Amino acid sequence: MRLNPRRYLPILDWGSRYTAETLGNDLLAAVIVTIMLIPQSLAYALLAGLPPEVGLYASIAPLVLYALFGTSRTLAVGPVAVASLMTAAAVAPLAAQGTPEYLGAAVALAMLSGLMLLAMGVLRLGFLANFISHPVISGFITASGILIAAGQLPQILGVSARGETLPHLLSSLWAKLSDTKPSALVIGGAVIAFLFWSRTRLKPLLIARFNLSARLAGALSRAAPILAVALTILAVKLFALTLPVVGDIPRGLPVPTLPPFDPVLWSQIAVPALLIALVGYVETISVAQTLAAKRRQRIDPDQELIALGAANVGAAVSGGFPVTGGFARSVVNFDAGAETPAAGAFTAVGMAAATLFLTPLLADLPKATLSATIIVAVLSLVDLGALPRTLRYSRADFAAMLATILVTLVLGVETGISAGVALSLGLHLWRSSRPHVAVVGQVPGTEHFRNIDRHNVVTATDVLSIRIDESLYFPNARFLEDRLLAEIADNPGLRHIVLICNAVNVIDSSALETLEALNARLRDGGVTLHLSEVKGPVMDRLSRSHFLHELSGRVFLTQYDAMVALAPALTAETRAAARVETAKAAR
Amino acid sequence: MRLNPRRYLPILDWGSRYTAETLGNDLLAAVIVTIMLIPQSLAYALLAGLPPEVGLYASIAPLVLYALFGTSRTLAVGPVAVASLMTAAAVAPLAAQGTPEYLGAAVALAMLSGLMLLAMGVLRLGFLANFISHPVISGFITASGILIAAGQLPQILGVSARGETLPHLLSSLWAKLSDTKPSALVIGGAVIAFLFWSRTRLKPLLIARFNLSARLAGALSRAAPILAVALTILAVKLFALTLPVVGDIPRGLPVPTLPPFDPVLWSQIAVPALLIALVGYVETISVAQTLAAKRRQRIDPDQELIALGAANVGAAVSGGFPVTGGFARSVVNFDAGAETPAAGAFTAVGMAAATLFLTPLLADLPKATLSATIIVAVLSLVDLGALPRTLRYSRADFAAMLATILVTLVLGVETGISAGVALSLGLHLWRSSRPHVAVVGQVPGTEHFRNIDRHNVVTATDVLSIRIDESLYFPNARFLEDRLLAEIADNPGLRHIVLICNAVNVIDSSALETLEALNARLRDGGVTLHLSEVKGPVMDRLSRSHFLHELSGRVFLTQYDAMVALAPALTAETRAAARVETAKAAR
Repeated sequence: MRLNPRRYLPILDWGSRYTAETLGNDLLAAVIVTIMLIPQSLAYALLAGLPPEVGLYASIAPLVLYALFGTSRTLAVGPVAVASLMTAAAVAPLAAQGTPEYLGAAVALAMLSGLMLLAMGVLRLGFLANFISHPVISGFITASGILIAAGQLPQILGVSARGETLPHLLSSLWAKLSDTKPSALVIGGAVIAFLFWSRTRLKPLLIARFNLSARLAGALSRAAPILAVALTILAVKLFALTLPVVGDIPRGLPVPTLPPFDPVLWSQIAVPALLIALVGYVETISVAQTLAAKRRQRIDPDQELIALGAANVGAAVSGGFPVTGGFARSVVNFDAGAETPAAGAFTAVGMAAATLFLTPLLADLPKATLSATIIVAVLSLVDLGALPRTLRYSRADFAAMLATILVTLVLGVETGISAGVALSLGLHLWRSSRPHVAVVGQVPGTEHFRNIDRHNVVTATDVLSIRIDESLYFPNARFLEDRLLAEIADNPGLRHIVLICNAVNVIDSSALETLEALNARLRDGGVTLHLSEVKGPVMDRLSRSHFLHELSGRVFLTQYDAMVALAPALTAETRAAARVETAKAAR
Repeated sequence: MRLNPRRYLPILDWGSRYTAETLGNDLLAAVIVTIMLIPQSLAYALLAGLPPEVGLYASIAPLVLYALFGTSRTLAVGPVAVASLMTAAAVAPLAAQGTPEYLGAAVALAMLSGLMLLAMGVLRLGFLANFISHPVISGFITASGILIAAGQLPQILGVSARGETLPHLLSSLWAKLSDTKPSALVIGGAVIAFLFWSRTRLKPLLIARFNLSARLAGALSRAAPILAVALTILAVKLFALTLPVVGDIPRGLPVPTLPPFDPVLWSQIAVPALLIALVGYVETISVAQTLAAKRRQRIDPDQELIALGAANVGAAVSGGFPVTGGFARSVVNFDAGAETPAAGAFTAVGMAAATLFLTPLLADLPKATLSATIIVAVLSLVDLGALPRTLRYSRADFAAMLATILVTLVLGVETGISAGVALSLGLHLWRSSRPHVAVVGQVPGTEHFRNIDRHNVVTATDVLSIRIDESLYFPNARFLEDRLLAEIADNPGLRHIVLICNAVNVIDSSALETLEALNARLRDGGVTLHLSEVKGPVMDRLSRSHFLHELSGRVFLTQYDAMVALAPALTAETRAAARVETAKAAR
């Protein structure tokens, strides 16, 4: 294998063709994304239970690293809602919110997730993300959206209620309902209403009233959250409102520090780190591929693991928490005309500038404003319509989705996604453990063999021909055994079994041992085992084992050859029938 | 579903045809199995770290319950080596050996394993045992055999060394080597030598010297362990040897008691209980099927879960520990002529009688004797030859087997089997995530399409026809996406993609969402997606979703139809070529 630097550093590829026009487009996109990212970064840090500046830090170094290593031209990484919720769930049992231990655990989580992603990228283990099926990820994101939105209600009401699961949260909220702070409720409610309104109405209004171009109106309407931030800060100052605010944010950039290696902490967060890595990767790759296809660009899924891993290690080193490719901000980046990952690097510069110069202005920002932006952002993640849609298509997939949603809401995010993955793997194994198997007979007058349940075919009483429509491997090895042993128990006259293997692409060691055991058991029961129509590569492999020497019967090239040898009377009869048919036709 | 009492109580079936001759055969087999089972029960209790009587208790009630519920006519259940080792490993971290808590945890383990097996039987979840592939179970049993044999060395040497893993055990043994008790070493060594000799030489000797029938000689040679027990007790008494002995065993039968429900304890032993249940079930079903096939009898795998579950609950209620169908004792039972499960019930009576009347005689039994019988029994489990055999056949399966052996030896039984299962599932998923996919072209002059890499075929530059040789489901959903998106990025001239689905038996929700996303992404990139040769059941299901409405292209009945519609020039050309060929032939 030759090392191709362009595979590991895609910047070498697009960087060499960078022009002034590209620069202009990337800069414009970066400005728009920065404006969108400032309130989001603060809000998601709040969601993760972390100080607001941590969200800003997580929006600087990761963006630069993704620009170096990522293969997507337009993906925007940073703190996202679901990963922030998962961070809170992982860290809450280990330390009290607001302590250095809590922050340390969140940073370690980013580090470990990043290292896991890097390892998966180098070892090309991206296929592990396949463990999470679509119904499970979709159910998980819906449930996370509900949990996140519900979790913001206390901030909107200005009360302090907590709970990692929906029942805990709602009962805690119910108990505190009388403490509701009117100022928080007014601010929060107004921001929610304004943001929902601006989503659908602001852009057409700007076009109609001010005669703006669609692109500029779209870009300006993305500034609605930052406008809400500015207006509510102003309201707090003007009316001297007393409600929970963000407070003083340390000014200045984070100093790069390698987080300490703490084996006890790392073993406690290993499972959540893996789940965050996998869920984040699934989200990232799906956003990246959607956008790349629009411009016929190419995404390298293994390289994306490396890029996302580097971004998370970068987040950890700069005191941030786990980051992911976000859907909304990537679409904004794409729509705003970003052409290369340099747009991401420019966004990082913008975020750094905000961290340096904007933070003093944010001290009076009401937490209710941030909660309102979170609620509006995450409600678009909730897709309960997927439930009936999936039920119509597949009951097994529906069960996996519903279980993921319910377990996530009631028992929390880690249990929820783990249960979903376990259930969908179980259902998959259950399905593969029951391959389609057909007993076949000969179509009279031909050399063709068809399912005896569906076609008018002839069979010999002492020969059972059985076609397996699936590779033979460990999930279904026992099924074949059970089925054939049941057949010989039910048919005392049986002398031969022929396995038709034309659909068998692989026979693994488990299936080989099953065949060996079957062969011996059938021989003990006076039945000979034959194979027919074995594919070349399967035959090559079988001849490296002892099976072919021990096989009580033969391996036939075709099923017709097998029937000529084992049931000559039958094939002679059908040949005679064929001759009669031909004679009739000739008459 | 009608309840069929004969399904759940097979005794109703064979019991109604019970004759005096059957009774005679079952009684003879019961006597021989009882003689074999007495030393084994004591030895496996010792191996599990439990008082000897617990082994006897575990050989009474479970046998009666299996006789009621089991579908195998000849399976003999009771304490076995691997389950005893797993019990010791599960219980050791929770309590000190010899305490009531240790015994209580072992009993709870049997209860929980039994309940899990019953639940799996009622819910027909026997397929879960498929999670454990052959290479994993084979590697696990080999490693367990090594661990068990090594674990008996301290008793043979008369020293007290302990360790749950091979490195711990060997280093602990090495430190105590100077304490070796000569009397234990002589007794242990002599019994090992005698048992190995009796295995191969005793039966021929009995036939040659005493002119016995082969069957009687075989039965008598099974008494070698009990002879060793009697002789070494005698030696201890005669020579007043001082070495560790079994000591006083409480006389009398266990009083049935429901073990207390302790949620904390149960949650601590849930994983080991599940592993013991699955490993025990795999062993049981494999023994039962081997023996049933010899007499063309039928095993119901789901009912076996219920029978084994009832046996374990019975073990727990009567103060015993986890039980399984044992290979050696079942073969003895079969060879001795047992005809029905009643032989097992009679064996239980024999074991009860031994518990009542024989226990006073066993006080002076050297532990070295029992350790020697364990060593001889488990060394037949060790099959290191399976490693090169598997390597020749499949490297992936070899890796799973080797990893299971090494992890079991170095990190213990639970970690070993869990790692093996995880690795083999991972490898399976990796394999299914890369289905065989072929780009096809038209065989000139025919309506057939073949792989462009293997055959001389023609293609159209703006149409890509791709055949998927596998069902589409979540493990491979992403693969197809990556592959097709790479194709459109590499071929700017592409206008149409046709997916040939003649080998696709299932499209699950994950694959459906992938197809929907692909369809949208390809459309954004100016490429139309078509399907051809979709099977009936797959088409029925697709028409219940929105996919067919959204599909940018069409669904063609055959691939030839697709090419006629999408590349008329090509098909016309090949038709013309065909005409030329025909004309040439006619000339």
